[in-house]
Amino acid sequence: MVNSVLVINGPNLNLLGLREPQLYGATTLSQLESGLRERAATLGIKFDTFQSNCEGAIIDRIHQARGEFDVIVINAGGLTHTSVALRDAFSGVAIPFIELHVTNTHAREEFRHKSFLSEKAVAVIMGFGVHGYYYALDHAANNVNSKK
Amino acid sequence: MVNSVLVINGPNLNLLGLREPQLYGATTLSQLESGLRERAATLGIKFDTFQSNCEGAIIDRIHQARGEFDVIVINAGGLTHTSVALRDAFSGVAIPFIELHVTNTHAREEFRHKSFLSEKAVAVIMGFGVHGYYYALDHAANNVNSKK
Amino acid sequence: MVNSVLVINGPNLNLLGLREPQLYGATTLSQLESGLRERAATLGIKFDTFQSNCEGAIIDRIHQARGEFDVIVINAGGLTHTSVALRDAFSGVAIPFIELHVTNTHAREEFRHKSFLSEKAVAVIMGFGVHGYYYALDHAANNVNSKK
Amino acid sequence: MVNSVLVINGPNLNLLGLREPQLYGATTLSQLESGLRERAATLGIKFDTFQSNCEGAIIDRIHQARGEFDVIVINAGGLTHTSVALRDAFSGVAIPFIELHVTNTHAREEFRHKSFLSEKAVAVIMGFGVHGYYYALDHAANNVNSKK
Amino acid sequence: MVNSVLVINGPNLNLLGLREPQLYGATTLSQLESGLRERAATLGIKFDTFQSNCEGAIIDRIHQARGEFDVIVINAGGLTHTSVALRDAFSGVAIPFIELHVTNTHAREEFRHKSFLSEKAVAVIMGFGVHGYYYALDHAANNVNSKK
Amino acid sequence: MVNSVLVINGPNLNLLGLREPQLYGATTLSQLESGLRERAATLGIKFDTFQSNCEGAIIDRIHQARGEFDVIVINAGGLTHTSVALRDAFSGVAIPFIELHVTNTHAREEFRHKSFLSEKAVAVIMGFGVHGYYYALDHAANNVNSKK
Amino acid sequence: MVNSVLVINGPNLNLLGLREPQLYGATTLSQLESGLRERAATLGIKFDTFQSNCEGAIIDRIHQARGEFDVIVINAGGLTHTSVALRDAFSGVAIPFIELHVTNTHAREEFRHKSFLSEKAVAVIMGFGVHGYYYALDHAANNVNSKK
Amino acid sequence: MVNSVLVINGPNLNLLGLREPQLYGATTLSQLESGLRERAATLGIKFDTFQSNCEGAIIDRIHQARGEFDVIVINAGGLTHTSVALRDAFSGVAIPFIELHVTNTHAREEFRHKSFLSEKAVAVIMGFGVHGYYYALDHAANNVNSKK
Amino acid sequence: MVNSVLVINGPNLNLLGLREPQLYGATTLSQLESGLRERAATLGIKFDTFQSNCEGAIIDRIHQARGEFDVIVINAGGLTHTSVALRDAFSGVAIPFIELHVTNTHAREEFRHKSFLSEKAVAVIMGFGVHGYYYALDHAANNVNSKK
Amino acid sequence: MVNSVLVINGPNLNLLGLREPQLYGATTLSQLESGLRERAATLGIKFDTFQSNCEGAIIDRIHQARGEFDVIVINAGGLTHTSVALRDAFSGVAIPFIELHVTNTHAREEFRHKSFLSEKAVAVIMGFGVHGYYYALDHAANNVNSKK
Amino acid sequence: MVNSVLVINGPNLNLLGLREPQLYGATTLSQLESGLRERAATLGIKFDTFQSNCEGAIIDRIHQARGEFDVIVINAGGLTHTSVALRDAFSGVAIPFIELHVTNTHAREEFRHKSFLSEKAVAVIMGFGVHGYYYALDHAANNVNSKK
Amino acid sequence: MVNSVLVINGPNLNLLGLREPQLYGATTLSQLESGLRERAATLGIKFDTFQSNCEGAIIDRIHQARGEFDVIVINAGGLTHTSVALRDAFSGVAIPFIELHVTNTHAREEFRHKSFLSEKAVAVIMGFGVHGYYYALDHAANNVNSKK
Repeated sequence: MVNSVLVINGPNLNLLGLREPQLYGATTLSQLESGLRERAATLGIKFDTFQSNCEGAIIDRIHQARGEFDVIVINAGGLTHTSVALRDAFSGVAIPFIELHVTNTHAREEFRHKSFLSEKAVAVIMGFGVHGYYYALDHAANNVNSKK
Repeated sequence: MVNSVLVINGPNLNLLGLREPQLYGATTLSQLESGLRERAATLGIKFDTFQSNCEGAIIDRIHQARGEFDVIVINAGGLTHTSVALRDAFSGVAIPFIELHVTNTHAREEFRHKSFLSEKAVAVIMGFGVHGYYYALDHAANNVNSKK
Repeated sequence: MVNSVLVINGPNLNLLGLREPQLYGATTLSQLESGLRERAATLGIKFDTFQSNCEGAIIDRIHQARGEFDVIVINAGGLTHTSVALRDAFSGVAIPFIELHVTNTHAREEFRHKSFLSEKAVAVIMGFGVHGYYYALDHAANNVNSKK
Repeated sequence: MVNSVLVINGPNLNLLGLREPQLYGATTLSQLESGLRERAATLGIKFDTFQSNCEGAIIDRIHQARGEFDVIVINAGGLTHTSVALRDAFSGVAIPFIELHVTNTHAREEFRHKSFLSEKAVAVIMGFGVHGYYYALDHAANNVNSKK
Repeated sequence: MVNSVLVINGPNLNLLGLREPQLYGATTLSQLESGLRERAATLGIKFDTFQSNCEGAIIDRIHQARGEFDVIVINAGGLTHTSVALRDAFSGVAIPFIELHVTNTHAREEFRHKSFLSEKAVAVIMGFGVHGYYYALDHAANNVNSKK
Repeated sequence: MVNSVLVINGPNLNLLGLREPQLYGATTLSQLESGLRERAATLGIKFDTFQSNCEGAIIDRIHQARGEFDVIVINAGGLTHTSVALRDAFSGVAIPFIELHVTNTHAREEFRHKSFLSEKAVAVIMGFGVHGYYYALDHAANNVNSKK
Repeated sequence: MVNSVLVINGPNLNLLGLREPQLYGATTLSQLESGLRERAATLGIKFDTFQSNCEGAIIDRIHQARGEFDVIVINAGGLTHTSVALRDAFSGVAIPFIELHVTNTHAREEFRHKSFLSEKAVAVIMGFGVHGYYYALDHAANNVNSKK
Repeated sequence: MVNSVLVINGPNLNLLGLREPQLYGATTLSQLESGLRERAATLGIKFDTFQSNCEGAIIDRIHQARGEFDVIVINAGGLTHTSVALRDAFSGVAIPFIELHVTNTHAREEFRHKSFLSEKAVAVIMGFGVHGYYYALDHAANNVNSKK
Repeated sequence: MVNSVLVINGPNLNLLGLREPQLYGATTLSQLESGLRERAATLGIKFDTFQSNCEGAIIDRIHQARGEFDVIVINAGGLTHTSVALRDAFSGVAIPFIELHVTNTHAREEFRHKSFLSEKAVAVIMGFGVHGYYYALDHAANNVNSKK
Repeated sequence: MVNSVLVINGPNLNLLGLREPQLYGATTLSQLESGLRERAATLGIKFDTFQSNCEGAIIDRIHQARGEFDVIVINAGGLTHTSVALRDAFSGVAIPFIELHVTNTHAREEFRHKSFLSEKAVAVIMGFGVHGYYYALDHAANNVNSKK
Repeated sequence: MVNSVLVINGPNLNLLGLREPQLYGATTLSQLESGLRERAATLGIKFDTFQSNCEGAIIDRIHQARGEFDVIVINAGGLTHTSVALRDAFSGVAIPFIELHVTNTHAREEFRHKSFLSEKAVAVIMGFGVHGYYYALDHAANNVNSKK
Repeated sequence: MVNSVLVINGPNLNLLGLREPQLYGATTLSQLESGLRERAATLGIKFDTFQSNCEGAIIDRIHQARGEFDVIVINAGGLTHTSVALRDAFSGVAIPFIELHVTNTHAREEFRHKSFLSEKAVAVIMGFGVHGYYYALDHAANNVNSKK
């Protein structure tokens, strides 16, 4: 059993619900975060969210999560395909994480087929829209072996 | 709303629960299929499962699903990375499908990073163990726009 | 002069005429096979057809064609791009063959640009729709040097 | 129905019948062009041929074909594998065309496996010897949807 | 007609005029920005500039430009070749943009030949020195179809 | 010491001795299997053979070998270079195996230089003609550490 | 200051304004050349234009430009991506040149991302439509250091 | 002789000594920085350190070092393999620098074998643990030709 | 013994002696051709030269050489690296040829390391300046087995 | 029947039995050579062995084997993957050879998957430990067609 | 603590100080070896040096170092990028080693960016000139865990 | 004018004239060396030859040539394609050299198309049989600028 989950959203996810709704859906980021917070309450776990367009700020947040959260759910946006530093941040704090994408990135440009995170992730979920966050949260809460 | 889901398991998935339990878990394929059947009953949808080690038999099953099932959840095993014919079968019947893997294939050999199915899949879920089947089933039942 | 031709259709060709008619035309496989049979009768040659979604069954059929047919016309579907065993089957029986595709595969995905059969084929025809089968049949009957 | 077809032969095709007859056959280019002219007369369509060893001259001829011919059959010889300008010429005039090779280029050097034309061609035929021109002509006359 | 243009300069462009003047010229960034501001006044359009060495800050600025500017002219410096997040930012706000480089990046290292922005850009201009900014501004003001 | 060995031959090996004898020798598959059976009797081990042109059937046979055979000797033919599912079948049953080819596949086409099996095989032997089966059988019986 | 500029258009540019106006605009080549001639008169520089579909003719023209023109503006069309000889022609005459494309070639097929000219060009401009010619002409007249 | 050295540590180096001590050692970043400061005092040179997880902040610091420091020692962490902007920052300020890694990155993942910095670095040192910083500092102080 | 040699120079070789004399020497093409003509007279062989910047014209000249010349010495310039049609022209006329370059092309850009002619050439000589033509002429006259 | 076999061991094989016994076994090179010598005596063939860490010395030994030995069995160690000169030595003396590796090199690093010898070898055997030498010797003595 | 260090210099290092002093410095190999010997005396460790242009001789020396030296410092020169046998020699004797280059090889040709040794080295140091040998020696003496 | 030339032959060239005479001719190495010695006498230059199958010995010989020979003609055999150390030896002694091959290596295997020497060679000559040595000697004596 896991007691705490942090959900991190990377670059451009603050636009969720505001852009291309036919692709990303109409749910905004704050609506999504509220929904997840409610679900976490139901699950009885500690929960928080974070969003930034800056790689450095996301790494800082991951570092702070050491000893604070058992599992991280991350949608790293475009950094997924380019950031070694982000991958190293997870290795540095040794917190298991689930990689998430709102759309199916494998059905998009070739350069989105490679992820620096996937190799280190516990699990990967993509193309489930915002529903994926809920599945990831449930799975994190119930099935991921924390390092505690 | 979707009314019917077919779950297909490809080569070697009949060994589920019998091999490498530390990797794949202890749930056998028949236990998994029973569990999914129950969940489907709860969801009130038509449901069936199929497993074969033969690419041709899986293609035949997909063809028969035309007009019979709204969504397919498939764990194509090793065929994922090598079968164009399987990909074409999905294009041929135009049934939306979710690609599933029990383990995180991106954390395994390089040749498992490429999937002929992902580009055509509605969604992809991997590394959630057998729990992934339940998430995929729920998502298929509730959120995939069927072509009906 | 050639006295006998076998036409083989691989995976998903049983859906001919049933799917994507704007791409593949409205002629069904059985209509096509009937038409070809008539043309073969006119040409005065022995003729047969075979379709399977299973690589192994197609290889078996090619093996049986030894001593029975002078030329094979094959639309191997998705196996074209992935099957070394199929290519070896042709080398094994040493029957000259014509490779055929209903659509122009070079105008489709990158992975369809490579064919394991082309290097061993007498000739290749693609993009002529179902008409290609008739051209291939005529050419096989009149111009391919059989090994007899 | 198509009313007019232009057959273009590129570099070195003027040597047809004069070189390597075991590979290319003994029919000369002028014999082939006469034969095709006869067939075109039988089909009741407007017809012309053109051969040049110069890329620029071929592009000029394609440009002139605008409003004059419905379909072009082209054997671009070595330019097939190297000429973007030729490909652009077809895009520029928007005349559907069939790509033809006397031999099966896929059974030859690696660099002949890539064609700049195939992606834009209606159909591709190779390895049928000079017979391929007749099949292409028939198909152009009867089955290619002209832009008229 | 376009009414507003934002000019963004990425990492290291703050050094313009201070380093390698034989390569980048002697105009400083603030001189350039002043010059562009004057030109924009002449053109009668709303105008602003932004420079940062931080990818996240640039993405933030692009997001804020939604509903504020019709066109963006961007010299993304080294991020051009590495940042998917920046590319996604433009897709997210759907503001047409012109990609600019002071030097001809194609005459430099191999890794500078690939740009994540070019595929999404309206136009690309490089090697015109600081003059390129004026051409891009004029073009943005007069010829780019805004989404308004 | 090993008590039981299964020899599996894949696609097109049923043609052994019937095709290209200068390449593959004149021994037929049934002659080879008889010879191996005799050798196995001499070695005092349990022994069986299997041949199929169908990937699925071969996987099924490997699965059935669990608890039945200590070592498998496999000549997977063309599947060697293309089948991930076959490789996974060996991982699934955890039976050590020896990969065998009648000819030296490294002296043939480029695509035959890659084997999905070699990485998981205990040993690889190629180019020894049908003699290789006897060496592999002897080695399997005497030197492979079974998992018993 | 530069006193003379030659504008060269390569293969298929003679179709400017006649084909795909939504992509290339409605201005014909002769209209463009007239417009540029007027601008050159305003700038007070010697000016000429040249168009050919033949690589050899373009190389000849470049050679003749030695001692005659200070700068060349070239839209080499499809030759951009394939012609080493054209690149060498510029090296041979040592006349600085600006590479121009009407559309943004980086937003088109992969093979258009490579240019044999860019590495040697003073500057590159693409996607500005026919306006790009005017910017290039102005820049050539005012800012390119001629070798005089 | 060099009079001033700046040591920069990039993303995740703030975790030094806190994570994977068997790999990175038990020395924390502040202990390391103190030790280096002492050594610098002994060497009689001006000295400072900087650490950030943000690419932009590191670039800013490098810019500020112009005219302030003679040599930079940098451990850029994961940015080493992905940041062109960082490389450009060094070119922009023209301060010679030594690239350092605590572990031997060549013994790790393939993507860590490429460094955007190495090509521009004066020297590279890796796998010496925290001792490498001292060697680099000594070398910077005694042997690097500053641009003063 | 060979009785006749044709020397062909491709694109930009007409500039020989006029450009970059430190690289190509000061001998002009007409001086070189005169010198070679004298040497051929000494050798007592039929001799001619040809230069063109047009690929098509060179191919035409090669075709005309059939039955006229025993050996061709060719410096194809930039076409060396890009022209399949030129390679095919040599195959078409079956005249042995020697490939020549004035400079050592292997010491230049990567794309000059590949030659479409070398694979079919009798011999290759590069970097001997204009002297190479004399060596090639001597060798052609004395040692190349003509097809006569 | 073959009358003489030479066994060559390349770099580092002198350490056999001394290093990593769990991987290479405990048999030393001299024990192995003695064992093989006995087996050769039993087979009634001329026999010798050679080991060197120097590529040149091995090539010399292969040259001396001309007219002396019918077949060579070689374990070229690390030279397998890097030495063209060794491959050429075999072509030069035209002695058929069997390539041998103690371990299964395909299960090791990527660069060990390529062998410069395999393409020219009669047969390849790997992963049979020191037993492989005996199989190779038997096969060489009984089944390899010598050039005598 | 380590008691003994061997320094090996590979091909062309005997020319140290004699060639390109602006690149490699003016210190000759014997001066360097004397200097290192003095330093080793100061450190109180057993020490020796070896230089050879022959790969085989270097491998022999490494083998002899077994049981004699605790650490090896090696500058393998050009063999660094091509020799698998050298890499295997280190694996064979299991002596930890430090890889050294006088210049920064990453700033040189592409093929120098790959090292067969780095993956197995304890540490890598390059670009420190001959000073690097002293740093490596100090580090070897003080910080490398020997296998004793 | 050059006063001294050294001809070096690498691995397997000692077999010249003894193997594959249809490919390499019937002239033995000693006959060739005698012939060249005579030619050198005629040219009035100091001359010597060297052959070895050992890379290290060839490097040693090149080192000794410093101050002794003005130009080296080298046929490095298989080392051409694999030896960085040999390339470095030439850089180390700074003696200009001509690369020679008896056959046209570009008409052979792919791996023979890359040469580590060509980039540094003054000139390259291949496919002229043993005649090439004479052309290279003449050219070395008359036209290569020595560094004296």
